[in-house]
Amino acid sequence: MITISIIGSGNVAQHLISAFEKSNELQLVQVFSRDKSKITTQIEPEKIINNYKDLQKVDLIIIAVSDHAISEVSGKIPFQNQLVAHTSGSISIDDLDAKNRKSVFYPLQTFSKNKDINFSEVPICLEVQNNSDFEILEKIAKIISNKIYKINSSQRKSLHVSAVFVCNFVNHLYQIGNEICEQNFIDFEILKPLILETAKKLETLTPKEAQTGPAKRQDTETINAHIAFLSDQNQKEIYKILTKSIIDNGKKL
Amino acid sequence: MITISIIGSGNVAQHLISAFEKSNELQLVQVFSRDKSKITTQIEPEKIINNYKDLQKVDLIIIAVSDHAISEVSGKIPFQNQLVAHTSGSISIDDLDAKNRKSVFYPLQTFSKNKDINFSEVPICLEVQNNSDFEILEKIAKIISNKIYKINSSQRKSLHVSAVFVCNFVNHLYQIGNEICEQNFIDFEILKPLILETAKKLETLTPKEAQTGPAKRQDTETINAHIAFLSDQNQKEIYKILTKSIIDNGKKL
Repeated sequence: MITISIIGSGNVAQHLISAFEKSNELQLVQVFSRDKSKITTQIEPEKIINNYKDLQKVDLIIIAVSDHAISEVSGKIPFQNQLVAHTSGSISIDDLDAKNRKSVFYPLQTFSKNKDINFSEVPICLEVQNNSDFEILEKIAKIISNKIYKINSSQRKSLHVSAVFVCNFVNHLYQIGNEICEQNFIDFEILKPLILETAKKLETLTPKEAQTGPAKRQDTETINAHIAFLSDQNQKEIYKILTKSIIDNGKKL
Repeated sequence: MITISIIGSGNVAQHLISAFEKSNELQLVQVFSRDKSKITTQIEPEKIINNYKDLQKVDLIIIAVSDHAISEVSGKIPFQNQLVAHTSGSISIDDLDAKNRKSVFYPLQTFSKNKDINFSEVPICLEVQNNSDFEILEKIAKIISNKIYKINSSQRKSLHVSAVFVCNFVNHLYQIGNEICEQNFIDFEILKPLILETAKKLETLTPKEAQTGPAKRQDTETINAHIAFLSDQNQKEIYKILTKSIIDNGKKL
């Protein structure tokens, strides 16, 4: 039986706890959280610890904390030569403390409280310091997901930037759409089939093939009417630069 | 049997042809296209005409042409008091020629060639000049879709602006993600589960609740590293303004 412990109590930590607890092929031994009450995922209370001294040796300790705390937390693990992974998209594998065997276990997904995730569909990006550790890391990843990728720190950084564009920024555009609807007494529900179809189109088309709209058509009249319609300064700027970028991109062909 | 004809050969026209042809409750009488060969959707060839004089009177003529051509095309219909609808998000009902009964039949979806659409899930936004025409328009819309909305020209304009944000601009962000992946030898496939989950989150969360990422966390270190990483000037600008907008939005709470 593979043994794992997790340090952290944020969204990634709690979704990982939930995914590991569902598996019969591995054992979640401990969860470290400074504030034990923050662990809301169902787990036996005695597994939750808040003192590094209580940590037991396991096959893998996963550090799922804020980026800026990863280095410090990895230094507090009271072992030598223990396999340790962080879960961050933007932090290098080198930031982990050198006394242990370094690795990365980066689940590429957007995790929110109160929103269940089907982990089998979540791509997990793996990186190891010692090639000999790859097998165990891959074995663990395969227990919870069907999509495993070997990605180095430099690729992972660029992947994280891409993820910010296709997830965080995309969600903010959803919010702007929502605000414009609210201000004009339109039910945001009406836009949801469009939102879903825009994402699903990528199953069969490249984003370039899927592009539609006034900027793609260089329909200056509609573009100017939309800019005049928008009163929020940020929204105006976002409209302008994205329109410019779509038009510039069309010229690149 | 309800009778309909369509003027136009673009993506909206052809997806409507396909949706109407599938129904047994209405009859697609004619399709007008200046260049008959542009109609690639399966339809009996004798139904395709390219002379306005050949148009027959029907229950509804749908004008699905470019925004700038709607007014002119509506003037060429050789009838009086014929029910006529355009399909545009941004054009007022008033732009239709006054000799006929004006209406709007706006399917709120992104239509691409080579990508089938399940029309039953496409919201159709209806507007009529004469209230007495609403019933027939609604009947036609309900034959092909389950989601019917009564939306006036002013609301439709704001809805169209929202749609540009949540569809056209979102798709362009997908394209930027794709480009960054290509430049760094990463398979874009790895981002697709994230893209789909970001859209699906809206089934249970508002966009504001669903927001994650460095801008939401005001993680200046990661934000600056990402801006430094980006070499394309448009991508840099888009990153900066969307980050600013997410941060400003967080303060509005």
